[in-house]
Amino acid sequence: MTTAPHELDAIVRRAADAAPLWRRSAATDRAAWLRAAADALDAHVDELVAIADEETRLGTPRLTGEVARTSGQLRLFATVVEEGSYLELTIDEADATASPPRPELRRMLTALGPVAVFSASNFPFAFSVAGGDTASALAAGNPVVVKAHSGHPRLSVRTAEIVSAALVAAGAPEGSLALVEGREAGNALVQHPLITAAGFTGSVAGGRALFDLASGRPDPIPFYGELGSINPVVVTSGAAAERGAALATGLVGSFTLGVGQFCTKPGVVFFPAGSGFDEAVAAAVPTASGGPLLTDRITDAFPEGLAHLEGDASVSVVATGTEVAGVRPVALRTDAVAVTERPETLFEECFGPVTLLVEYSSDEELHAALRAVPGSLTATLHSESGEEVAEVLELLQARAGRVLFAGWPTGVAVTWSQQHGGPWPATTSLHTSVGASAIRRFLRPLAFQDAPQELLPDALRDEALAVLPHRRNGVLVVP
Amino acid sequence: MTTAPHELDAIVRRAADAAPLWRRSAATDRAAWLRAAADALDAHVDELVAIADEETRLGTPRLTGEVARTSGQLRLFATVVEEGSYLELTIDEADATASPPRPELRRMLTALGPVAVFSASNFPFAFSVAGGDTASALAAGNPVVVKAHSGHPRLSVRTAEIVSAALVAAGAPEGSLALVEGREAGNALVQHPLITAAGFTGSVAGGRALFDLASGRPDPIPFYGELGSINPVVVTSGAAAERGAALATGLVGSFTLGVGQFCTKPGVVFFPAGSGFDEAVAAAVPTASGGPLLTDRITDAFPEGLAHLEGDASVSVVATGTEVAGVRPVALRTDAVAVTERPETLFEECFGPVTLLVEYSSDEELHAALRAVPGSLTATLHSESGEEVAEVLELLQARAGRVLFAGWPTGVAVTWSQQHGGPWPATTSLHTSVGASAIRRFLRPLAFQDAPQELLPDALRDEALAVLPHRRNGVLVVP
Repeated sequence: MTTAPHELDAIVRRAADAAPLWRRSAATDRAAWLRAAADALDAHVDELVAIADEETRLGTPRLTGEVARTSGQLRLFATVVEEGSYLELTIDEADATASPPRPELRRMLTALGPVAVFSASNFPFAFSVAGGDTASALAAGNPVVVKAHSGHPRLSVRTAEIVSAALVAAGAPEGSLALVEGREAGNALVQHPLITAAGFTGSVAGGRALFDLASGRPDPIPFYGELGSINPVVVTSGAAAERGAALATGLVGSFTLGVGQFCTKPGVVFFPAGSGFDEAVAAAVPTASGGPLLTDRITDAFPEGLAHLEGDASVSVVATGTEVAGVRPVALRTDAVAVTERPETLFEECFGPVTLLVEYSSDEELHAALRAVPGSLTATLHSESGEEVAEVLELLQARAGRVLFAGWPTGVAVTWSQQHGGPWPATTSLHTSVGASAIRRFLRPLAFQDAPQELLPDALRDEALAVLPHRRNGVLVVP
Repeated sequence: MTTAPHELDAIVRRAADAAPLWRRSAATDRAAWLRAAADALDAHVDELVAIADEETRLGTPRLTGEVARTSGQLRLFATVVEEGSYLELTIDEADATASPPRPELRRMLTALGPVAVFSASNFPFAFSVAGGDTASALAAGNPVVVKAHSGHPRLSVRTAEIVSAALVAAGAPEGSLALVEGREAGNALVQHPLITAAGFTGSVAGGRALFDLASGRPDPIPFYGELGSINPVVVTSGAAAERGAALATGLVGSFTLGVGQFCTKPGVVFFPAGSGFDEAVAAAVPTASGGPLLTDRITDAFPEGLAHLEGDASVSVVATGTEVAGVRPVALRTDAVAVTERPETLFEECFGPVTLLVEYSSDEELHAALRAVPGSLTATLHSESGEEVAEVLELLQARAGRVLFAGWPTGVAVTWSQQHGGPWPATTSLHTSVGASAIRRFLRPLAFQDAPQELLPDALRDEALAVLPHRRNGVLVVP
């Protein structure tokens, strides 16, 4: 199924027609629209999960939880819109005594216009039609045109039907959320003159191609892509000695969760030589099972990725788990010297239930190897109090957007403080695609100089400032 | 003078060595470094202004004022760093009762690493070596490598010497601020693997070329370019009737200020047919004088740009001012139908003392012409209370970052609320290059999950949160 060029153009034009209404919508209305979308998802959970399970084989419990996460995400953004800090309201009063005299300036963030969202295969709800990019773009006041993922086409169509009907029923304009299908339509979408920004979650190759199209436009637009991430983990000798078996069990649970198809999967784990951590992992892996992968492409790519890793002379198998649907979890091992020499081979992300243990024999070896780690969404440090970890921490935080000191990177809480983004190729941007501040990606600053009250947007008028957080003459005010 | 490739590499590496010290620097230290740079500029004002006047011919009064603006800008950023809101500190406490249980997350913005700054010809202080891009990048905690503008090479070298010496004397690391020269060095700079972002002020052609290099890197970096802007002005029939002569005088002062070489120069002015506003402008223009332009390139380009505009059959001369140094201010006129049909010709930015008056005969004509206006830094609406301006305002604010309702767009106050940026080609980004929030361009988010206090950056520790603005569990806290 592919959206024809004239259909795509009509869809984007309808979104552009809806854009001023979204931009000018009152916070209470916009929040109500987001909550209506959330309620509609919850009301159709059984129907949607059934379609999703047929198309993705992710299973009912996981998919049901993902719907709740997705509706919760929409509701968080409703709260963000109501709270109002996201507008970054900033007022400087006129100052006739300044040299030169200062005019009054009132600044806010405002919506961009129609946003393109490219959905992911691995979260058919949370990073798809009504997922985080859509929720944050709508919350910012922008209509959305989603490029459906080919991995769950029926679910995409049905989700778009349900959510757009709910938005319109709640009072949002027609054209608020629409769907296009097919690779060519996606390429045309990101280049459409009325599209103002794009969000993307997917592969490095696919994301880079779309980024290049967005950047190559006559009028370049921001492209917020989440591309690839190997999510390094460092286990210190203290941690290995103190809780090696528990860490091994946790690691196995994390790298096999969702059949290893999370962008935050711990893909490479540094452990100290002689610590026995590899043996602890070897003991834990057999308890894990494989399962069907999301798409034919991933099903084909997983053994290819494994063969690529195992083709390196330094790599050996630590242990394997139970094969299900032709997929068997596996922990591999190599050493720090090898990854430092061949990072392109050994630090390449491999979707599926595999992780690479990397033995280090000294701090110097570990530091050198960490310098070769590509940008990632997350980095994890398991250490004990009193260990000297300053240099390791410095290297990890330079390469990641979220640094963990307990637990595992899979599992991304949707909160005000979440950061889901990192240095290239984790993302193309200095922003997050999960959590409250994801909304910032789809806003631009707009200042009004010496404006009469009646010509100001509602949020910048004195009566709104009486209740909204803002900065006045440099001082933060929380009414 | 061109910086050789191996020199450039050494310069960037020194900046990279300084980067962790800048990133981790305490707010009090960083603010002191910025103030030391400001004090050094002020202390050397006579020497610097003398060199600048030789190279730019902008005159002592203007250049002296610009030094004050530039040092003031550094001091504003020192205040921003001390105030701490720019860190966007956000804490969500752990919640064991959530499903799934929520970890503790602490989020901040942190520095990127060495930033490239491409300086402009038309503000040899405020948008050059120690200008807004440099000040905001340093304030964010990044060392800076400036590509000097060829229009003021000696001033660039001397400013860099003075400011970097002041930074080091105040305790900042060596390598905090350095200079490279030559177009090839600029191209190499934006592509250097250790450069993490770039700021630029200049032409559309030059900015686009560098944007393409930044976006085309194996690891794309953000490129914050301010490229070109025609800054539309709309005069309504009410305003023309009520204060046409005063508006005409103000317009002439604004479009000839700095010999018409401001990026915020009002380049196109819509006025109602039969209002006599063109006659008022014709009466005011002769009081204005030309002057030497900044560079040979601009001196050559101004008559070419004029010839390009006057080559359109619809364009005629309204009035001219006094020729000085071969440059004569001129107001041209055309009509709304012509600009709607030929926006590429008639809405092209022309640096120098020229503005284009555009007569409109109906609201429909005006609206159609405004839809053809390219993205601009500013848009100005001169109207009277009670006039119906909703549609005009909607069209103007869609095309600009700052909308004025009194005065003229030249003159950009350096404040918390300033917005100096707009839709393409005004800027490449959704940010500002002037004012407190310019700092956001050179920061990225970083979150810490379940971190022990002693491994957190200082700003995220409990003792810092007791005094810094932050958000805790969704609630904004101003200690």
